[in-house]
Amino acid sequence: MTGSADLAGCEWLQYDYSPALMSRGQPGSFTMWRYRKLLPIPDDPVRYPVPVGGTPLLPAPALRQELGAPQLWIKDETRNPSASNKDRATALVIEDGLRRGVDTITTASTGNAAVATAYGAAAAGIRAVLFVSTDCRPDKLALMTQAGAQVFQVRDGYAAAVELSRAAARTFGWLDRNTGANPFTIEAKKTVAFEVWEQLERRVPDVMIVPVGDGPTLVALDKGFAELVGCGLATHQPRLIGVQAERCQPLVRAWLGTPAGPAELNPAATIADGIAVVRPAIGDAVLDVVSRGGGEMVAVTEDALLNAVATLACRAGVGAEPAGAAALAGLKTAFERGLADPLETVVLLVTGREVKAGGATDRLGRVAVVEGLDEVERALADPIPSS
Amino acid sequence: MTGSADLAGCEWLQYDYSPALMSRGQPGSFTMWRYRKLLPIPDDPVRYPVPVGGTPLLPAPALRQELGAPQLWIKDETRNPSASNKDRATALVIEDGLRRGVDTITTASTGNAAVATAYGAAAAGIRAVLFVSTDCRPDKLALMTQAGAQVFQVRDGYAAAVELSRAAARTFGWLDRNTGANPFTIEAKKTVAFEVWEQLERRVPDVMIVPVGDGPTLVALDKGFAELVGCGLATHQPRLIGVQAERCQPLVRAWLGTPAGPAELNPAATIADGIAVVRPAIGDAVLDVVSRGGGEMVAVTEDALLNAVATLACRAGVGAEPAGAAALAGLKTAFERGLADPLETVVLLVTGREVKAGGATDRLGRVAVVEGLDEVERALADPIPSS
Ligand SMILES: Cc1ncc(COP(=O)(O)O)c(C=O)c1O
Ligand SMILES: Cc1ncc(COP(=O)(O)O)c(C=O)c1O
Repeated sequence: MTGSADLAGCEWLQYDYSPALMSRGQPGSFTMWRYRKLLPIPDDPVRYPVPVGGTPLLPAPALRQELGAPQLWIKDETRNPSASNKDRATALVIEDGLRRGVDTITTASTGNAAVATAYGAAAAGIRAVLFVSTDCRPDKLALMTQAGAQVFQVRDGYAAAVELSRAAARTFGWLDRNTGANPFTIEAKKTVAFEVWEQLERRVPDVMIVPVGDGPTLVALDKGFAELVGCGLATHQPRLIGVQAERCQPLVRAWLGTPAGPAELNPAATIADGIAVVRPAIGDAVLDVVSRGGGEMVAVTEDALLNAVATLACRAGVGAEPAGAAALAGLKTAFERGLADPLETVVLLVTGREVKAGGATDRLGRVAVVEGLDEVERALADPIPSS
Repeated sequence: MTGSADLAGCEWLQYDYSPALMSRGQPGSFTMWRYRKLLPIPDDPVRYPVPVGGTPLLPAPALRQELGAPQLWIKDETRNPSASNKDRATALVIEDGLRRGVDTITTASTGNAAVATAYGAAAAGIRAVLFVSTDCRPDKLALMTQAGAQVFQVRDGYAAAVELSRAAARTFGWLDRNTGANPFTIEAKKTVAFEVWEQLERRVPDVMIVPVGDGPTLVALDKGFAELVGCGLATHQPRLIGVQAERCQPLVRAWLGTPAGPAELNPAATIADGIAVVRPAIGDAVLDVVSRGGGEMVAVTEDALLNAVATLACRAGVGAEPAGAAALAGLKTAFERGLADPLETVVLLVTGREVKAGGATDRLGRVAVVEGLDEVERALADPIPSS
């Protein structure tokens, strides 16, 4: 800076202008497509029009200090386009669909995967048909319909929504983005492991802590780290600690080998709706990879989840929804129980934040409650006009 | 991909693993600090711990098709850490403060700048003291307090909040991030022009359309493009079209030279709260740069704003709040009035989306209504405990 001038009362800093002040070369880019050779799509130009992945690994100095954990990192998946890690799976499934000319994508979801799919389909110019429980938060419904998706609510809950979405995919030839069912969702989410490894200067962390709903997020991380070992680029994998809400903890109970009571399988009772899954799609795989890697499954209280949200906001400047903040709640348990040491390199996976539908959201377009495939077919043939 | 295996019932794609499957070199990074030589901070390592800027310039194929505008682009500022372009100014002001050892930042705001400041201060480990109108949306207040900020509400509205924030900065020696008052806010926001130019392969667009509240976003863009010309890197600047809400359009009225009626200066009446400013801080500079560049000021209706939000979501997969979507509403007016041609290269600046505070947001910590500096001082000496 070399001085300042005045423009209509506004201070205007001056420099010694020359081409040398501008950086040379193209600005870098960092997205999940960097790992194309380890993804199941050919190595030609990517069609998906929105950058996904390449999310920051944050050092979070104030949080490190508060916890006495100098090697703590936050992998901030809220920086994805629809603010959750679900965007990775959406992008890969749609990329594959664009190459094959499929024009409709479907998924069931507790909320975030459906939001990601609605926005991703809109960006790519294809149709999204989404299946959610009638319990799904209205705010998340509003986001889906604002992005132009057709949404079907299913009274029997998330598991029934998955059935219907998968049946529709088979019957109508749609892209099936159901997590755990489509291996591409795992392929996409494993890129988080590659990014963390590169961001730590080609080292794996000691421990990675991850919220667990259906399981693909954790299982995919394991696969990513295993592939780094398979490629000869790492010698070992991190311990994975999976976190569930105490009020919906099927996998923690299965891990401990003790039956879950009804209060521990109550998805509507936890604020961590994103991970409130009673019958996880790939629960066995979760237990398998956690035990093979010397990891652990832990349950956290509602208070711990709320505190984790607040602590991430005020000590790290990271906004997260409760399911997204669950890893920090799990970290506290892990420290207390000696499952992780504060001096280890620990990465918290912060999976999502909630965004809002813009403007008036009372005009809920295209939502219908359905029970079977025939109703789905009828509704699509005769679409409810979007307001 | 070379095959697939099975892991606990879950399909597991396989590759011919070797180090060659992993990209070489460090992943690229793209942030506003790329333009360090044109920013008023020394060229040593950046202290601010969160990446800001380097937001995507999206081709939006479905939107291009709908509008018949093949060279339309969206500069998506919602991909910043607190989901608005305000993060750039926050980052530069705090970066400077960290270097000078100042531990408190203040700003007044219609909402987004305060949210960005709260999150940025939390990330950097300094204190934020924010001044907003008592009209400020409760959702935005919840975000500020969740990030640990002290928030003061001012009954006399935004202009009075600015006065008080600036007086507090002078009296207590805090960082003054008030937009328009601190030239660093312009310096930070001008990086959007540099990014757009690089993302268009070192070309300037024909037209750039921008929402206007206090003015710094538009004025900074002008300065950025002027500096590219000053550096000998561009031969001309784009025409800038500034957009305001019909219900709060002081600068459109001043541009047209016709007095604004009360219905045109009614900030509480528009959904575009982010740009609802009755007395823009640097309005004269806005009119000055728009006229020098052959640009225009346009006002848009509430319906046009709502439609713009919906169209961005369902045709581009971009979530925006109404003020953030105003450029698309302005584009339609610009096409109708011949201010831009559909075949020109047009960039819409999408400035922000709304995020949600996570978890329970009824526990509003540290908010107080104040009238003068003495009350501010007392409240800070004896802080209301955060719940
Ligand atoms: C915010 C958030 N975190 C974590 C998860 C868990 O992911 P998974 O189902 O892959 O275990 C979800 C899933 O919906 C989520 O929405
Ligand atoms: C979403 C959004 N867009 C645009 C603006 C306008 O910015 P400026 O005050 O720099 O004119 C604001 C300002 O608060 C905003 O919040």
